[in-house]
Amino acid sequence: MTAVLDQLAQPDDAEVAGLDAWWRASNYLTVGQIYLQGNPLLREPLTAEHIKPRLLGHWGTSPGLSFVYAHVSRLIRLTGQQAIYLAGPGHGGPALVAAGYLEGTYSEIYPKVSQDEPGMLRLFRQFSSPGGIPSHVSVTTPGSIHEGGELGYVLVHAFGSVMDNPDLLTIAVVGDGEAETGPLEGSWKGISFINPEHDGAVLPILHLNGAKIAGPTVLARKDPAEVRRLLEGHGYEIIEVGGDELPGMHHRFAEALASAWGKIRAIQTAAREGGWDGRRPRWPLIILRTPKGWTGPQTVDGVTVGGTWRAHQVPLSGVRDNADHLRMLEEWLRSYRPEELFDATGAPTALVRDLAPAGDLRMSASPHANGGRLTRDLDLPDFRDYAVEVKRPASGRAESTRRLGELMRDIYTRNPDRFRLFCPDETNSNRLGAVFEVSDRAFMETVGPDDVKLSRAGRVMEVLSEHNCHGWLEGYTLTGRHGMFATYEAFAMVSASQTIQHGKWLQEASHLPWRAKVPSLNILLTSTAWRNDHNGFSHQGPGLIQNVLTQRGDVARVYLPPDANTLLSVADHCFRSRSYINLIVIDKQPQLQFLDMDQAIEHCARGAGVWEWAGTDDGTGDPDIVLACAGDVVTMETVAAARILMERLPAMRTRVVNVVDLMTLPRPKDHPHGMSETLFRELFTDNVDVVFAFHGYPGAIHQLVHGRPDADRFRVRGFIEQGTTTTPFDMTVRNRASRYHLVMDAINNARRLPSGATELKAWCEAQLVKHESYVVEHLEDMPEVRDWSLGDWAQS
Amino acid sequence: MTAVLDQLAQPDDAEVAGLDAWWRASNYLTVGQIYLQGNPLLREPLTAEHIKPRLLGHWGTSPGLSFVYAHVSRLIRLTGQQAIYLAGPGHGGPALVAAGYLEGTYSEIYPKVSQDEPGMLRLFRQFSSPGGIPSHVSVTTPGSIHEGGELGYVLVHAFGSVMDNPDLLTIAVVGDGEAETGPLEGSWKGISFINPEHDGAVLPILHLNGAKIAGPTVLARKDPAEVRRLLEGHGYEIIEVGGDELPGMHHRFAEALASAWGKIRAIQTAAREGGWDGRRPRWPLIILRTPKGWTGPQTVDGVTVGGTWRAHQVPLSGVRDNADHLRMLEEWLRSYRPEELFDATGAPTALVRDLAPAGDLRMSASPHANGGRLTRDLDLPDFRDYAVEVKRPASGRAESTRRLGELMRDIYTRNPDRFRLFCPDETNSNRLGAVFEVSDRAFMETVGPDDVKLSRAGRVMEVLSEHNCHGWLEGYTLTGRHGMFATYEAFAMVSASQTIQHGKWLQEASHLPWRAKVPSLNILLTSTAWRNDHNGFSHQGPGLIQNVLTQRGDVARVYLPPDANTLLSVADHCFRSRSYINLIVIDKQPQLQFLDMDQAIEHCARGAGVWEWAGTDDGTGDPDIVLACAGDVVTMETVAAARILMERLPAMRTRVVNVVDLMTLPRPKDHPHGMSETLFRELFTDNVDVVFAFHGYPGAIHQLVHGRPDADRFRVRGFIEQGTTTTPFDMTVRNRASRYHLVMDAINNARRLPSGATELKAWCEAQLVKHESYVVEHLEDMPEVRDWSLGDWAQS
Repeated sequence: MTAVLDQLAQPDDAEVAGLDAWWRASNYLTVGQIYLQGNPLLREPLTAEHIKPRLLGHWGTSPGLSFVYAHVSRLIRLTGQQAIYLAGPGHGGPALVAAGYLEGTYSEIYPKVSQDEPGMLRLFRQFSSPGGIPSHVSVTTPGSIHEGGELGYVLVHAFGSVMDNPDLLTIAVVGDGEAETGPLEGSWKGISFINPEHDGAVLPILHLNGAKIAGPTVLARKDPAEVRRLLEGHGYEIIEVGGDELPGMHHRFAEALASAWGKIRAIQTAAREGGWDGRRPRWPLIILRTPKGWTGPQTVDGVTVGGTWRAHQVPLSGVRDNADHLRMLEEWLRSYRPEELFDATGAPTALVRDLAPAGDLRMSASPHANGGRLTRDLDLPDFRDYAVEVKRPASGRAESTRRLGELMRDIYTRNPDRFRLFCPDETNSNRLGAVFEVSDRAFMETVGPDDVKLSRAGRVMEVLSEHNCHGWLEGYTLTGRHGMFATYEAFAMVSASQTIQHGKWLQEASHLPWRAKVPSLNILLTSTAWRNDHNGFSHQGPGLIQNVLTQRGDVARVYLPPDANTLLSVADHCFRSRSYINLIVIDKQPQLQFLDMDQAIEHCARGAGVWEWAGTDDGTGDPDIVLACAGDVVTMETVAAARILMERLPAMRTRVVNVVDLMTLPRPKDHPHGMSETLFRELFTDNVDVVFAFHGYPGAIHQLVHGRPDADRFRVRGFIEQGTTTTPFDMTVRNRASRYHLVMDAINNARRLPSGATELKAWCEAQLVKHESYVVEHLEDMPEVRDWSLGDWAQS
Repeated sequence: MTAVLDQLAQPDDAEVAGLDAWWRASNYLTVGQIYLQGNPLLREPLTAEHIKPRLLGHWGTSPGLSFVYAHVSRLIRLTGQQAIYLAGPGHGGPALVAAGYLEGTYSEIYPKVSQDEPGMLRLFRQFSSPGGIPSHVSVTTPGSIHEGGELGYVLVHAFGSVMDNPDLLTIAVVGDGEAETGPLEGSWKGISFINPEHDGAVLPILHLNGAKIAGPTVLARKDPAEVRRLLEGHGYEIIEVGGDELPGMHHRFAEALASAWGKIRAIQTAAREGGWDGRRPRWPLIILRTPKGWTGPQTVDGVTVGGTWRAHQVPLSGVRDNADHLRMLEEWLRSYRPEELFDATGAPTALVRDLAPAGDLRMSASPHANGGRLTRDLDLPDFRDYAVEVKRPASGRAESTRRLGELMRDIYTRNPDRFRLFCPDETNSNRLGAVFEVSDRAFMETVGPDDVKLSRAGRVMEVLSEHNCHGWLEGYTLTGRHGMFATYEAFAMVSASQTIQHGKWLQEASHLPWRAKVPSLNILLTSTAWRNDHNGFSHQGPGLIQNVLTQRGDVARVYLPPDANTLLSVADHCFRSRSYINLIVIDKQPQLQFLDMDQAIEHCARGAGVWEWAGTDDGTGDPDIVLACAGDVVTMETVAAARILMERLPAMRTRVVNVVDLMTLPRPKDHPHGMSETLFRELFTDNVDVVFAFHGYPGAIHQLVHGRPDADRFRVRGFIEQGTTTTPFDMTVRNRASRYHLVMDAINNARRLPSGATELKAWCEAQLVKHESYVVEHLEDMPEVRDWSLGDWAQS
């Protein structure tokens, strides 16, 4: 250990030459990607024809990213450490592509981009070009589990990747632009949840190059002592390296990296072999200060470019038309001495190649960054064992999510190395607390005698940050493990952009055969808009459904199980699935139970079906009205409405259709789950009006049924942004989705009206007036509130 | 100054008695709100009948909030300081309601909640009850500009409130739960942008009471030295107070608050009167450590409650059925000695009342927290002066947002005290850089010689954090000033939850007559999905539209101006409007210009209209097809498609309809901007098919036109999650919204097909095949890319 640390810290001249050669090669390829469409090896003088017609890409951060990559590669080669590399400054796409190319991975995956002159030309041309690859680190980049683009998530991905992954070291480069975002600032605290016994390590490298797109950054311009204090305050031990002179920077960074790795190994060894006091380690963190656009043009047209925001994208513009810029570009490219780096065929020379580790240890080839390769199915208990007994539909109540908690408890037990629940401090509140029978909450800060189910051994992840929870789960699944993010429905919007970006990742990955499918991102929304009895309007918003609907059909899944047994069936399906966003929406409060387990399984397999027991439709001919529903509370209201109609207007033929898989509604051409038109007509008829009670915003149903036979006949009730602290029943009244509204809708739209309909409408209106006056009088008279928990479900 | 500071720091016994009395009164009212429906003044022994049937609310954080409130009130009374109070732990709703009640503001606004026994009973009963008020600090709470609920935004609101508000001190209490969120952690850096010359001050009080809902928090359990270092690293000077013993805590907090206020005044005086070195001040920050549920029950049923997460909500449950708990509740309430605090009528005694400042200085009555009262209209230049000359539609190009930048430049000049632009480092990129002619970027950290338009005098707000930008603008407008948040379209989703929560705030405020209307929240989305030529799929997402659509009609406005003059007209309208969310979507790249200023004004006034010049519809009878569009790029494609049809299939009668105000599409009953059915039929006919090219996800149009005559006839093309780094034209092809797709859609859906239609479809298909092969061959052959910027708009 000491010997290898010494060697790491003190590279000899040959090693420095190797590091520098690899770095120069990577920089050369980066500049080539931005500028060249011909003459890739500079075998002839550079001319305008060799320059791309449009210059796109980001130079500024790239040399720093490559510099770090080179040094980590050497560390891996010398130590055998398994590592992956997450580039927070995702704009450095060409640097990471260059790294994969130099390591040979790129050509293995994309044979046309071969390690020779034609391949190099292809590498250059494809960059940021139609039909080619994006300019950011992306799904197409081997070795990446982190898309460059929306900033802020590099540390959450990194921490997620090392949970239950004890042998992995994740290098997370944080750009100083990204460091200004809220999600990033909120993610330094990951070390308060990482246990060196069973987790791997994250080495954050805060790469301060001073500027973002158009100006300096806060961290780059703060007193360095303040930056150090800030990160020490987060709990890190700071190692600082800065400058631009060579080879000095190689020596100093090698020493810094060796020091950091030595500390990490010491922490892990103590934790795993004895000698740890159990307190949160002070993990190392490197602050690296190098100029933006390091090794690039310093001054262009008399203006300082190097080290400023002007180096962010393309430092030399108009190269085709400006002979001076063309000359500068050629000098710049030749400054890397490509003739030393690539042989006659265009392949990297031994000087370059020898730096990199071999096989799966290459960061661009690490199976950890292609997590599907490491994914093992969950050992799942039989979900039927957790069933709620339902002897008669709608006769009993249960907290549905409690059963899911019990299922997850046993998943924890059976899969101690590959399953975690992520939740912003609401596991118990969401009735999932059974998991605490077998695992504590993870916590590395001080634990006191009054704390409950909280320890460093814990593996249930609670932190009051949707960004952390969501991002950790992303990192966990992208490295091949399984989990669920459970959160209050309204606050799922906090991390909605992460849901969307992860969906984009999965969509793109589905087109790349070399990317093995990973466990799905399972999101459970509880504490829903309809049942926030004691919280206000801010807690009422079913918006995430709306956003998942916009994702492509190969990724987006939305389930609205109405009760416990359907939830169990859906959850089992989701835990087995791969590479989806599975959104499951169900409330946590005691709720009516409708289906026994066999019925639930059949219902979920179909995704939608007629509930004969709830309606009066005898199956001969069309009903007078279809009452459809998706979502727990609105399903109860629909069943109650059908009951009212059955009792008070028995001659009206009603059919109740429940939808558990929302994606059965669109046409098959719009979503793979879309039911056939035949089935759609069987459920919803050809032209009978449908009163549809929906959990979310009504517009979602309108857009989903577009193109279905006579879609205009769907009258949708749902959440229309009416909320406050009130009873669940009052919520349905405020949003015009109560049983009484549904009965009136049914009467207003039925094909055929039996006598008595007018009277029934009047009765419904009277019920609503009664409710209204009850609410108004409530403050004067405060009676027992019979419907706080929806009381007798058919109290009407 | 010294004298008042001394007095502030050293309250005498009478003052401490007053502080304590006010605090006890507030705590009493807080507990009363949670528990009591009768016997509000404990004039008789407490019985089960006096207890609410359901116990809701959050006790844990409330006593700490009231404690701080009492002390700040004293500071205001002694100094005349204008201050508002933002409660980050929004769960402390009853504490802030109690404060407003004790100050008399509550009864002024809500006369039924009078300062006497019946009023107090009403205060208790209304809390967290149907027909009453929410349990969180909310819009209904006087003195609040910060909804409790979604955590993370207290500091961004606070910093926004003090910008250009030099006389205001905003007290921002940060809960230790909230402190775990990303947005909050990213918002400490607000002081790097606050200039003591022209801005007011924020005094953050980090209130560590140790726990969130179900467990301890990271900051509460970290080594206190680490917490101090962390906040010092953010640039603050730390003042720590902790404990629970009385009256000691009163003395120590008074001293801490005096010290903080003294430092703030010293900073401001130096900056405004001389003596400032121009460097970022080290603003004070108080860390206050008190037990969760301070002064409440310590042990219940043998379990420790006080100081733990168990005190978070209702520490004594089952009070109606548990005589022991009932007794404890009565003891708890009586421990505040209500007989000293409220007189025979139930009104606060002088002992309590005397603490509070008078009139508008009461924090619950501050006009800064009801910003509409302070709002002055913008002095707006005539937007017509910035017009792009358009002699013939679709004949020239301009960067439309550049004109908006010029307009905003002059708004800056005319309104130096009440207008700001907020943008994540993209003002220039978004072509709004004209503002830099008159204002720098605000920056309080070190400024170097190579920096451009960056200084402490600057008032353009750039920080690489959508959360900060959005939240600052919210705070700025809620205190009565005007502004705009401009951002990349895709990354508007980062702060989408803020948009939604602010929309909820405005929706609720619109029902409260005492809340004066505030300037609208204007959001400009540029760098749109269709024109991210050099960025990847991660930068392509029009999702925010989808989310604003779900807001209620009294708040939500969505504009898609197709060119510069319509943008100017829309912007002028938005800058004049009040209490809306105005979402404006337009790209920044050079784009075709369609309408001259007079036409643009008329078009925007209507919100949607027929572009006769673009179609072949002669106005006699219905056309064969309607080509509708909303959004710049898709409008260009639509106009191009109409041109192709005009030239190649002249016998087909096409009508082109452009929609600039998206909210004209829904029915008037669904949105106040919804056009009448008559007008709708005039534009879209009764039953002719409509090919609608939309900027965003197609489903948005389907849901908006639901209920319109024969809505099924709308065939919508839009963004269907197909993206990468590619040309804008290729983006329209990938998403099947190109001119060729629209022509084929028109032919497939036209009422009447002239001869030649089949041939034209074949020609379109051939064009697409040509494009496809062009893209495929591109990497081999890399020709000049004629359509990088959409080339000749009618290149077909």
